[in-house]
Amino acid sequence: MPSLSVLPPKCLQKPLLVPHRHMFGPGPSNVPSRILEAGANPVIGHIIHFTGTGHTAMECAIFNTVESGDSVLTAVNGIWGERAAEMAERIGARVNTIVAPPGGFFTNAEIEQALSKYRPVLFFLAHGESSTGVLHPLDGIGQLCQRYNCLFLVDAVASIGGAPLHMDQQGIDILYTGSQKVLNAPPGTAPISFSERACQKIFSRKSKPVSFFLDLNWLANYWGCDGKPSRVYHHTGPVTAFFSLRESLAVLVEEGLENSWERHQKVAEYFHTGLESMGLKLFVKEKKARLPTVTTIVAPHGYDWKEITSYIMKTHNIEISGGLGPSVGLVLRVGLMGCNSSKANVDMVLGALKDALKHCHKSKV
Amino acid sequence: MPSLSVLPPKCLQKPLLVPHRHMFGPGPSNVPSRILEAGANPVIGHIIHFTGTGHTAMECAIFNTVESGDSVLTAVNGIWGERAAEMAERIGARVNTIVAPPGGFFTNAEIEQALSKYRPVLFFLAHGESSTGVLHPLDGIGQLCQRYNCLFLVDAVASIGGAPLHMDQQGIDILYTGSQKVLNAPPGTAPISFSERACQKIFSRKSKPVSFFLDLNWLANYWGCDGKPSRVYHHTGPVTAFFSLRESLAVLVEEGLENSWERHQKVAEYFHTGLESMGLKLFVKEKKARLPTVTTIVAPHGYDWKEITSYIMKTHNIEISGGLGPSVGLVLRVGLMGCNSSKANVDMVLGALKDALKHCHKSKV
Repeated sequence: MPSLSVLPPKCLQKPLLVPHRHMFGPGPSNVPSRILEAGANPVIGHIIHFTGTGHTAMECAIFNTVESGDSVLTAVNGIWGERAAEMAERIGARVNTIVAPPGGFFTNAEIEQALSKYRPVLFFLAHGESSTGVLHPLDGIGQLCQRYNCLFLVDAVASIGGAPLHMDQQGIDILYTGSQKVLNAPPGTAPISFSERACQKIFSRKSKPVSFFLDLNWLANYWGCDGKPSRVYHHTGPVTAFFSLRESLAVLVEEGLENSWERHQKVAEYFHTGLESMGLKLFVKEKKARLPTVTTIVAPHGYDWKEITSYIMKTHNIEISGGLGPSVGLVLRVGLMGCNSSKANVDMVLGALKDALKHCHKSKV
Repeated sequence: MPSLSVLPPKCLQKPLLVPHRHMFGPGPSNVPSRILEAGANPVIGHIIHFTGTGHTAMECAIFNTVESGDSVLTAVNGIWGERAAEMAERIGARVNTIVAPPGGFFTNAEIEQALSKYRPVLFFLAHGESSTGVLHPLDGIGQLCQRYNCLFLVDAVASIGGAPLHMDQQGIDILYTGSQKVLNAPPGTAPISFSERACQKIFSRKSKPVSFFLDLNWLANYWGCDGKPSRVYHHTGPVTAFFSLRESLAVLVEEGLENSWERHQKVAEYFHTGLESMGLKLFVKEKKARLPTVTTIVAPHGYDWKEITSYIMKTHNIEISGGLGPSVGLVLRVGLMGCNSSKANVDMVLGALKDALKHCHKSKV
């Protein structure tokens, strides 16, 4: 037998030290100890839920509803619409996009025009566009999609629990989110939900989805929701992550969904007022389209945004971030989600921003 | 705004109660509190590692190395070769298999014959076939694959840390495992490794992989191992799961890899002797091909295997399981992995099995 040629890494011979930080970026956000402790429960056998991140859920939705050659429409006003388009292209869909400038959104008339022109089987829209800070209006779009015989896929990763959303009344066919934003659970799981219309399309498709791991024929049985008497092993679910997710949902139930929406809205308005009184500008002009969970601030003129975020991390132990995708260089992003959404945290961030603007080098850029 | 039409589920208004069980099935196995506690560390920003289960890693390997129309060969002597074949078929590969009966394995001559006949770009083999209890010999196969210009993909989910494995010396091009077996971390992460040959093939492919989430062009940059100066956001890694995985690797480093291999081998032999002295038969005839981590026992004649596993769970609080895929109905499977691999646990399982054979209804079947 050959001997081991590689020595174990020295870093594994030292204890793990994890810093405590204020996670005020666009996610992941801080996890209350109650939720972390739920995840430290002992492992049991396979249970029911979804394994993966928001990206996995996005691919799951697209892989199962779209076949090669199908027409797909995505609304691009930030990074998520771009990514949905790329995912659909990779599996051979004919993809069209409608594009709004970062910070903007679409009217229902614009959406209807595109549905009428491209006749897609699937229309993708991000409810909470965390790269640009836009909360997209949803009313009426589901009904348009039904009229054009199209499934309505909504990304609610950055919005669920933090802004009003009514899947059934708003005619949403597939809705997914992530565990690590408003829900305050560790990243790694992604709740997803399907309407009856979506199930009909998914279970009558002609070809198998490209992914076995994300094939809803298997997952529906594994989750115990396909009506069959026995469940077949599909994959090994991340049990302890589900414990944390379950606890995070229990926290939301205790507060009440409407109360949580209201709290996020009030805290966001308080934050926005504070920013404007400092002379900073909000990236999303229209008030009603501002995402209450992730705020985008126009990158302060004359500063290097990277110096600001580094300074705030180093001096205040607070994580905030710059832009993402189409908003890179244009914005600073501050996420105050779930347990982090409080006026005390707003005051902390405003103080850190004031300090950063004073100490960072305006002359540098 | 419409009012909420669905009340929060009652189960979320009660505390989470997780039972303590002896997890002696084929995985997940028990997680020591040290590893669970590492996972309860606070969340920090994005770090480097792989997100998903063993199935995700399997798809990642196949999606990135195989293009539509490529020839793929999989060795089927249990469920994993079947699943690898199905994954490759879904992305349009020409898939051939060599098939051995459950409990069997392949000689290098048989593998060479198939490589010569089908000229695949990728050959899949499960090192630890957890559905049948086979530890497949590896020596010489990597060199055969190199001769036929084929990548050698090895599934080591059930074997890593519990049986000797030398990726470089054995010419393995892609190796992956899971967190929840010998490593004793919660399920949800999957370490994966690529040889230089694999990287060359992956980074010179003509078409994009079907999955954006599993595209190694993105992941290599996200992991910081593509040599580029800056990392681009790809997805949100399950940070706390990585903490647990890191701690599980630290535990393995403390014991030493060779010591861990030796312990698993000794405990397995002790277990196998005990089973035979009870009159039970081992499913894998050839001693050297018995997986030291997951033992397959021929389902005792005249008993309903489901009654045995249920009785042992109910009476002894021990999870063991029946067969999977081609071994369903043929075997009982007992996993003793990582911290669970001890003579004391063998004695506990043997006692439970004796008790079950006495109390379950032999006449029922």
